[in-house]
This record gives sequence, C-alpha cells and structure tokens, in this order.
Amino acid sequence: MTGTPAPFTADDHRARMERAARAADEAGLAGVLVAPGPDLVWLTGYAPPAATERLTLLVLAAGRDPMLVVPTLEAPDAEKAVGAPALKLRDWTDGRDPYAVTAPLLDASGRYGVSDNAWALHLLGLQKELPGTSYVSLSEGLPMLRAVKDGAELDRLAAAGAAADATYEEILKVAFAGRRESDVAGDLAELLRHFGHEQVDFTVVGSGPNGASPHHEAGSRVIEHGDTVVLDFGGLKHGYGSDTSRTVHVGEPDAEEQRVHDIVRAAQQAGFEAVRPGAACQDVDRAARALITEAGYGDRFIHRTGHGIGVTTHEPPYMIEGEEQPLVPGMCFSVEPGIYLPGRFGVRIEDIVTVTEDGGRRLNDTPREMAVVN
Amino acid sequence: MTGTPAPFTADDHRARMERAARAADEAGLAGVLVAPGPDLVWLTGYAPPAATERLTLLVLAAGRDPMLVVPTLEAPDAEKAVGAPALKLRDWTDGRDPYAVTAPLLDASGRYGVSDNAWALHLLGLQKELPGTSYVSLSEGLPMLRAVKDGAELDRLAAAGAAADATYEEILKVAFAGRRESDVAGDLAELLRHFGHEQVDFTVVGSGPNGASPHHEAGSRVIEHGDTVVLDFGGLKHGYGSDTSRTVHVGEPDAEEQRVHDIVRAAQQAGFEAVRPGAACQDVDRAARALITEAGYGDRFIHRTGHGIGVTTHEPPYMIEGEEQPLVPGMCFSVEPGIYLPGRFGVRIEDIVTVTEDGGRRLNDTPREMAVVN
Repeated sequence: MTGTPAPFTADDHRARMERAARAADEAGLAGVLVAPGPDLVWLTGYAPPAATERLTLLVLAAGRDPMLVVPTLEAPDAEKAVGAPALKLRDWTDGRDPYAVTAPLLDASGRYGVSDNAWALHLLGLQKELPGTSYVSLSEGLPMLRAVKDGAELDRLAAAGAAADATYEEILKVAFAGRRESDVAGDLAELLRHFGHEQVDFTVVGSGPNGASPHHEAGSRVIEHGDTVVLDFGGLKHGYGSDTSRTVHVGEPDAEEQRVHDIVRAAQQAGFEAVRPGAACQDVDRAARALITEAGYGDRFIHRTGHGIGVTTHEPPYMIEGEEQPLVPGMCFSVEPGIYLPGRFGVRIEDIVTVTEDGGRRLNDTPREMAVVN
Repeated sequence: MTGTPAPFTADDHRARMERAARAADEAGLAGVLVAPGPDLVWLTGYAPPAATERLTLLVLAAGRDPMLVVPTLEAPDAEKAVGAPALKLRDWTDGRDPYAVTAPLLDASGRYGVSDNAWALHLLGLQKELPGTSYVSLSEGLPMLRAVKDGAELDRLAAAGAAADATYEEILKVAFAGRRESDVAGDLAELLRHFGHEQVDFTVVGSGPNGASPHHEAGSRVIEHGDTVVLDFGGLKHGYGSDTSRTVHVGEPDAEEQRVHDIVRAAQQAGFEAVRPGAACQDVDRAARALITEAGYGDRFIHRTGHGIGVTTHEPPYMIEGEEQPLVPGMCFSVEPGIYLPGRFGVRIEDIVTVTEDGGRRLNDTPREMAVVN
C-alpha cells in the first residue's frame, strides 16, 4: 500500500459492531460493554478527549441498536465520530447517576463482556446498580474480537511495518558510542514520525546492562564502544501498530555476545516457522523457547514470546504457554524471544507476523543478523 | 516558590502510604489496592512504563508492609522508584496467574478500596480469585485521600498556577484572527512548556460556535474577527497541575457577549467567595449556579462548577450538587462556571482555588475581564 489508505466508513464500523454483538451472543453473553480506548476506537472510530471518571460506554447486544452512553458535554465530539451514524447516543449530565442512565439498556440478569481497560470505578458502579448482572473481561470472554484482521487492516499493519523497517535502516547510520540512550531513542521517535507514524508508543534503547531489563525504556546511560544494544520501537501509523526489535553491537561483538544473539535469532526463526493456521498460540512460544532452553538459557527468557497487534501495540492473542487458541489467517502478532543476562546485556529480536493460508508472513523484515554500529 | 522544589523522598512516600492505610482502616476497609496512575505516583513515586494487561498493584493495609505486585520484567523499574525503599516487591512472571500471586496478600473476606482507574480486567481477576472479597472505588470509599495538600504540594500547585498565569499573559499578545484554533493551541502548549510544565494535558481553544461545546479541544476552524474564544489550558509542572480558563474576544464584544461574560465572571466570583472551611462542596456549585440561573441561563450551564487538582488535573473533590463533603484547608480545586449557547458561543472562567483557614486563595490569578485580542 502506498499513500494514505481510504478512511474507514460508518458502514465499516456498523459491520464491526454487528460482528461483536453476534460474537457475544454466540459466546453466551448478553452483550458487550465497551470503554474508551482501543475497543471503542475499533468499533466506532470514537476516541473521547480523555478517559475520565465521567462514564462513556458503548452497549452492544445482538438485535438491538448500538447505544453510546456519553457525558452531555462530550456529546458534540461523539456525534462527529466516523461511526456515529451507526449509533444512538444516550447522554447524561453532571449530577445524574450515569449507572442509572445505563441500567435500562442492560438485561438486569445478563452476563456482559467488558473492555479490559474499563475503569474499576465504572464496573463497580454497574455491579452496584444491577446486582443481578455479571461480567467477564473481553480478553477472557471474547479474546479474538479484534484479532483477525481484514484486508484493509492488514494493509495498514504492513504500512506500519514498512515504516519500522525504514526506521531501523536509518538508525544503523547514526552514532551510538558516546551518546545517551535517550538521544538514540529521540532519533528513533523522529524517524518513526518521519516515516508516517502519527503516534510513537515506545522507543526502547537498552545498552549494556540496561538491555537485560526487557522493559527498560531509554535512560541517561552513555552508550560505550563494546555495548550490546537492544532496540525496540513502535507506534501507530494510519491507526495501526508497528513493533520491531533488533539487537545491535557497538563495534564487533565478542564470542559470547555473538553466541547469545545466534541463539535468539534461531529461536525467533523457529517461532516464525511454527506459525500456520490451526497451530495453537502456545506452539509458537514452545518452538522459540525450546531452542533457548536447549542452549541453556531457559531461565533467562523471562517473558512470553509474543502479543497481538492492531489498533494497539499490545493485545490478544498472546503467544504463551497455556494459550490453546488456534491461529487463524489474518491474525497478527509479534514473535520476540530474548535472553537477558542481569548486570551484563540482553538480546531480543522481534518481527510482526501475520498468519496466512499456509504459514506466516513477516510484516517487518529487515535483516536479523547482529548489525555492527558506531 | 522559585526554582526546582526539593524532590519528595522515600520517607514522604512512606508517610503517605501509612496515612492511606490508616484512613482505610478508619473507613472500615481492609486495605487499599492501588493501580498504576495518579494514586500510585502519589503514594510511591512509581509510574510503570505503561498501564497494561500485566498486573501492577500496590496493596496497603494498616499494620502491614506495603507490597507492590509487579511483573518480573518491570521489577527493575519499580526498584528505582523514589518510594521503593518503603515497599516490598512481589514479582510475577509471564505465565503465572497474577491474581493467585496477589491473593495471599489480601484478607479473603475483606472489603477493599480500589483505584478508580484500575482496569476492569484486574478487578474481575481479583473478584474471581477471592469471591469473598468486596470492593469500593477509592473515589467513593476514600474520596479525600489525596484531596488535602501539604505545604510542599501547595508550593508546587502555586508554581503551576503562576506558570499558567504567565502563559495567559503571553497568549494575549499573539494573533487570533485568521489563524486556526489548533495554531493558538500550539502556542498555548509551547508557552506552558516554556514556563516549566513537563506535561501539557489540554489546550482548549473554542472559537465562536465551538466555544459552546465545553470539551471541544481545538480544531481546524479559522478564528474570525468578532469571535468569542474560550481558552482552557493546563498540565503538570513539577508533577502538579494547572488548569485555567479565560474567555477572550477578537475585537470588541457586542452587548450580549459582554453581558454573558459579566454573568459568568460574577458567578465565578460568587463561587470563589463561597470557599471556606466547613462549607460543603455543593455550596460552591450553588453559589456560582444561582447567579447564572437568576440571569436566565441556568439550562446553559451544563457542567459541575469544579474538580480537585493535584498530581492530576481532574480528581476529587467535585464541586457539584449533592456533594456534601466539607471543605478543609489545603484542598485545591477549580471554580469554573460557564454559559454555552449552542451554535453561537460559550464563556467559561476558571481559577484554581485552595481552601485557607479563613476562606479561599486563588492559585492562578490573572484579570478575569474579557480581554480583547487581535
């Protein structure tokens, strides 16, 4: 895809909302309650000014019109959302009880799926107002709601991946030694934006011992010659995510650094090759983990192998032991094994992979060898 | 206060955590469960890389050590938090059930206060793991936990207010007519940062009819001569919030615009004068609302009169009908009445006010007359 993709339409959102309501019905749920955040963006195109103590909630139920409960003072914003023509608004003014306003829209003895990131404040308000209702998180009740991407979504994810690839190619040209991690992180953010990201979510630069903390972001440590450096960067382009990790070395790596990198690279390849329709999510984790365990670093691979990606950079499905969900063409997720040696260095290699009819396809795909930087 | 304030210490955070645990005990709660966000920052100084599906939870209970449940891969970040020396960490690795890890830290039949913004996912996980527990949001169970500011906090809020005043004085000098709302919003953000804000939360520029939507942010509308323009801007400086609104006019206002502005200004003054120890929050709302209602615009003042401010720009206490919480010296909140005429224009005037021993004191305090801009 080149250029800007055609925007999603109210009909696109209507179809998604109908699909969600139908999936809830099939899962034995009375409906879906959607909070501001990625679920709401995906379903309606609406992103409130901010997630706050004021209740905004989309109520979906099979055979009923989608209803959006919204604070009166934000109703004008909601009316401008792309999906608004497919919605009915039910606004409530400050001073009214928003749960009492919502209650008539719910089945008083129904079991509802609720957005993972809905505020506890609001869930407690509904539980109190309607004591006969029960709730399950969407990641438990309808984990695959947003997991299978359609063609227009895949185009966007591929565009985000290509921008991440371009970013990586450029970052190899900058100076590492003598600069702070935060300086290189700034370069990554600038490059992601330059290549079309409207939002940068993370720019991890973990040099030397900092690389051994998988979620270290980027700090004031000055990168030195001889450092191994984990780069992990991504964000949103046209509303869809990128997430890439590569591990580079300032100057030539020593034998152990090279060996650890080779193991992670082989593990990442094994995880990628495990991707095919019908395989379970945990099979991807097992394939990658087996190589690392066999090499003696099993206890140093301290996170799951991957996570889904779409309108967010972290979502179901998760590539983790115990996740038996079968892979379906159109699913998109990271494959990102790592080895972390506390106090010394870390290595992680990550690509976004989509499930195809006969295997997997990488949506970002720069070389996975350990690049030598300056 | 000039310059950078002395940073909070582990002892400051220890004292806050002890105070919270004691307040919970006095309120009949078994403890407090704190999610990433403002509660956690205030109590521990710890802000995880991001709020995610991975459980991070601070457990406070009277007479016990504060315990922070944290994903293993974020433990190194948590250990660096200012409050970490006052905490014990309980980390959990991907693949384990974080609610099973948390359960032994809780009283299996206890009633807990939980951060408003805790994810529903996590609350549901705890409710399922410990069916004998019950929960109440902190805004209902301990609404005043962070409401009364100490001297060091008041200094920071005053510094943020002074920076907002300086921003307002400068924005009066820029061109309005012929520029987009978003351009003026960009100026506001730049000025807030220039005057020391590390975070800009909102820069509302509501010109002409856009001013009639209280939460309109700033759009592509080109501001015209003759427009009334609502400005509402704020963010965090040294970790504490500013939030100021002024309504300006491009060229001289007409008689009705001036009259509506005069009413709002008088209402804001009346709300301010209602601030004193022992008055109820709703008294502030009533005082401001009475003037607007008497002037015939009661149905055009469509939001509460104010909200607390501290490490966030929106928190309890709320100045709203029905809120009987008495005001206490050290509380800080906005007084921000408005009148909104759909399709035409809006007016809002807002100051942050702190309760003193004998009344109220404005923490931002530029002239409230309707300034004429170009």
